Amino acid sequence: MFGKCFHPPDSPSSYLGFLQKNNNLEERSRIVSSFKERTAKNLLSCDNSGGEARFRRTESDFSNLYARGRSQPCSSCWRSWKSSPATSGRPLTGLPRSWTSTIPTSCWRASRASTWSSLTSLSLWSRSYRVSFTCSSSSSLLLVWFRFTYEIAPVFVLMEQLTLKKMREIVGWPDGEGDGIFSPGGAISNMYSVMIARYKFFPEVKTKGMAAAPRLVLFTSEHSHYSIKKASAALGFGTENLILLNTDERGRVIPDDLEAKVIEAKRKGYVPLFVTATAGTTVYGAFDPINEIADICEKYNMWLHVDGAWGGGLLMSRKHRHKLNGVERANSVTWNPHKMMGVPLQCSAILVRERGLLQGCNSMCAGYLFQPDKQYDVTYDTGDKAIQCGRHVDIFKFWLMWKAKGTVGFEQHIDKCLDLSAYLYNKIKNREGFKMVFKGEPQHTNVCFWYIPPSLRSLPDGEERRQRLHKVAPKIKAMMMESGTTMVGYQPQGDKVNFFRMVISNPAATRSDIDFLVEEIERLGHDL
Amino acid sequence: MFGKCFHPPDSPSSYLGFLQKNNNLEERSRIVSSFKERTAKNLLSCDNSGGEARFRRTESDFSNLYARGRSQPCSSCWRSWKSSPATSGRPLTGLPRSWTSTIPTSCWRASRASTWSSLTSLSLWSRSYRVSFTCSSSSSLLLVWFRFTYEIAPVFVLMEQLTLKKMREIVGWPDGEGDGIFSPGGAISNMYSVMIARYKFFPEVKTKGMAAAPRLVLFTSEHSHYSIKKASAALGFGTENLILLNTDERGRVIPDDLEAKVIEAKRKGYVPLFVTATAGTTVYGAFDPINEIADICEKYNMWLHVDGAWGGGLLMSRKHRHKLNGVERANSVTWNPHKMMGVPLQCSAILVRERGLLQGCNSMCAGYLFQPDKQYDVTYDTGDKAIQCGRHVDIFKFWLMWKAKGTVGFEQHIDKCLDLSAYLYNKIKNREGFKMVFKGEPQHTNVCFWYIPPSLRSLPDGEERRQRLHKVAPKIKAMMMESGTTMVGYQPQGDKVNFFRMVISNPAATRSDIDFLVEEIERLGHDL
Repeated sequence: MFGKCFHPPDSPSSYLGFLQKNNNLEERSRIVSSFKERTAKNLLSCDNSGGEARFRRTESDFSNLYARGRSQPCSSCWRSWKSSPATSGRPLTGLPRSWTSTIPTSCWRASRASTWSSLTSLSLWSRSYRVSFTCSSSSSLLLVWFRFTYEIAPVFVLMEQLTLKKMREIVGWPDGEGDGIFSPGGAISNMYSVMIARYKFFPEVKTKGMAAAPRLVLFTSEHSHYSIKKASAALGFGTENLILLNTDERGRVIPDDLEAKVIEAKRKGYVPLFVTATAGTTVYGAFDPINEIADICEKYNMWLHVDGAWGGGLLMSRKHRHKLNGVERANSVTWNPHKMMGVPLQCSAILVRERGLLQGCNSMCAGYLFQPDKQYDVTYDTGDKAIQCGRHVDIFKFWLMWKAKGTVGFEQHIDKCLDLSAYLYNKIKNREGFKMVFKGEPQHTNVCFWYIPPSLRSLPDGEERRQRLHKVAPKIKAMMMESGTTMVGYQPQGDKVNFFRMVISNPAATRSDIDFLVEEIERLGHDL
Repeated sequence: MFGKCFHPPDSPSSYLGFLQKNNNLEERSRIVSSFKERTAKNLLSCDNSGGEARFRRTESDFSNLYARGRSQPCSSCWRSWKSSPATSGRPLTGLPRSWTSTIPTSCWRASRASTWSSLTSLSLWSRSYRVSFTCSSSSSLLLVWFRFTYEIAPVFVLMEQLTLKKMREIVGWPDGEGDGIFSPGGAISNMYSVMIARYKFFPEVKTKGMAAAPRLVLFTSEHSHYSIKKASAALGFGTENLILLNTDERGRVIPDDLEAKVIEAKRKGYVPLFVTATAGTTVYGAFDPINEIADICEKYNMWLHVDGAWGGGLLMSRKHRHKLNGVERANSVTWNPHKMMGVPLQCSAILVRERGLLQGCNSMCAGYLFQPDKQYDVTYDTGDKAIQCGRHVDIFKFWLMWKAKGTVGFEQHIDKCLDLSAYLYNKIKNREGFKMVFKGEPQHTNVCFWYIPPSLRSLPDGEERRQRLHKVAPKIKAMMMESGTTMVGYQPQGDKVNFFRMVISNPAATRSDIDFLVEEIERLGHDL
């Protein structure tokens, strides 16, 4: 898993073999692998040292791809294509050679990203297909193609499948087995997890509604993300049936509290259904003890969801992944590459250990999209698993980044951010005027602290000091925004008054950025 | 509303005035308008005739914007910025002049889209903010910035508000009053509508779950989009409590059937809650009679939702908007600019007539995002209305297109597509070997037809002919994909065997494209 980059499939030309029915995923992977070996020396590699030479290789490879006839024009090419007599692009087999030879090389140099995007949506260039759907040449820049069936976006569908499998391997599920989908954000991924859990234990709710189930209760940390609460409201459980679990001083769920509350719920006749363990809470960056929570879930037959929206990225780091020990025991996992791994928003995956639940839970078998008599293996039509119809192509950004950075690159990214947050923590933990919100080095990059202006330092603990301290962070943030130098968030939490929460997810940050932040807080807050 | 382009606000420099608390939307609009007047001659206009001259104007205007210090670099500029000693970008007030003067003009020429995107997210360039969040320079191309609070993406938040208001005006709600949000697709927008309706009539479901409500039933056309069914499953109603309404021969809901089924449901003790009228069904492109359905909704106190995901675009056309007559009586409307209006996926709006319901339904008041003690008017923090947390910036593509094409441009786009579909209909309605699925000119661009190969033409109506005809469209589609010339979808519907459904949403299509399609179907299907 480590020490070697994971290369997702390289080029759509390798996908033609996928069209045969009855190829399983492994066979398809072999097709991809053999293509990869042939072209590994030519294509964009995760070796970042090549500089100009790497660009040249990339370009020459793109020329091959034109010759294979799978590519997409800039707007001037588009115009020349439209005015050419031979405008019969071919779905699934690409554009005619006669046309592609007219593409000026400069068209491809302008934007590597747009060029890459052009390689991946074979079907949109057929003549009547563009009549129906492809509307705007700007879409080549905006990467907004959609898919719900394999025929519409075959390469994206396969990219998603292979990448999700790799993510499941990293979670620790044997052979990466299971299921999953990319969703529009962690809140929706968490919502999926609750839906699937309900479908697993009470499938009749799909047809008969919540009235068909007993009173179901859900459990989550008092520090968990508010999306769990939103899901409990939206899906018809009701927020009162989401039971909040106490945490220790550092914001980690106390397993004994979970068990006590499960027992209490059962005593009242409720049915404990679902537990979220958070891997990286929003405010403290805390990691709940997954193994201990998993023991309780097994004992009481509850679904275990790990919300790793924020902390899931640490699975890529050999140094830090132990914080998620036990994640392989989860029934579902939310993991947002758009957070700690720096993939541009949005890119969130819901991973599910048991195959078929997503499909069973959400499928409605829309006749106009999902016809069983299509000429290819329709198990690749992933749309019916989703609560959406068309989806944004979130996989592509992630795939491209993984391609460019490699697994090791993500690991370095994450280790760097955690090193920086440790630097910040060590810098301020004993610094005059600063007070940490919780003791000890943060588990994630969240560093939570109060700045105490000189005027408050001599005040005794008590309501007056609390009230005045509560106003300090908002004032400093307002001054930051006015002076335009920096911005850092604050919030209260439980009985703790407003404190700063600095999170670091950009590995391009430096220690001098951190130094600047601390000095700026002191400068702006000194006279409060 | 018509005859004159709607210009969304032009430049972020006009937004500085928005920061004062207590400005209402109208005052903010005035600030935008006055800025617009000043700069209307310089900025990208909806006059598409300018050619090179227009580009030059645009560039010179961007130079002004650098001087104002609000812009974003290409990756080489980014590197030079990082290595410069004065790297203190200012949130909400932009970048320092000293830095912006170093941007080479060529950097901006490469991509207008990326340049425009750069103008709209003021806060991401502050020093510590980029430490926390901004990770990838590729994001400048990918337009993937996020927002849940005004301070993160002030311009996008305001763009969204102004554009939603304009859409509500076009729907016909007085002064564009009401609420709304962009969501990741029509399926989610429709899900919102059901959630909001439930919250309006049974707000206690939010806290107590579906157990707190009586047995609620929903009504929708048998031809409606499957997302309504997905919503009824996901939200805990159960698909059996979604009652399907009969349609006439052309796929439009029969109002009498609705009333009869409402009465029947009440007789059983159920509570009729929600009715969807579809404006543009997926397969037939039918428009339900909204006014007659609205009468029944008023009579029985039910929520009326208009699913205009596909047909909402016709509101932009003076010639065709009568098909949605009565839409102003809806409580909520789904309208996907990414469909008929050609905005790149995804761009879907849920519009709500009553203000406050979205917020009431979904807000969870997450302390870490939504602090009441912020220095600006926190009613601009729209995140708590959504079931998502961060959202993709879908508004920007739409705004940009509206800017470029104008309302009149959208109208022409839509009229052209409907003209083309009428051309297809007239071409095949009496053509040998073709048979229309329903009589009369389609209401939308959906043209539904069978191709009957010569071998079937003499067969009498009956099971054998049906069975053989059922296989014709899949076979022709498979041959299309094999030969790579074109692709058109098919599906069965009710008791009708597989038929082709051609939809046209790209106004760049021509009559010769349509001719080609028809000839290709004849060529491929002749010997079946």
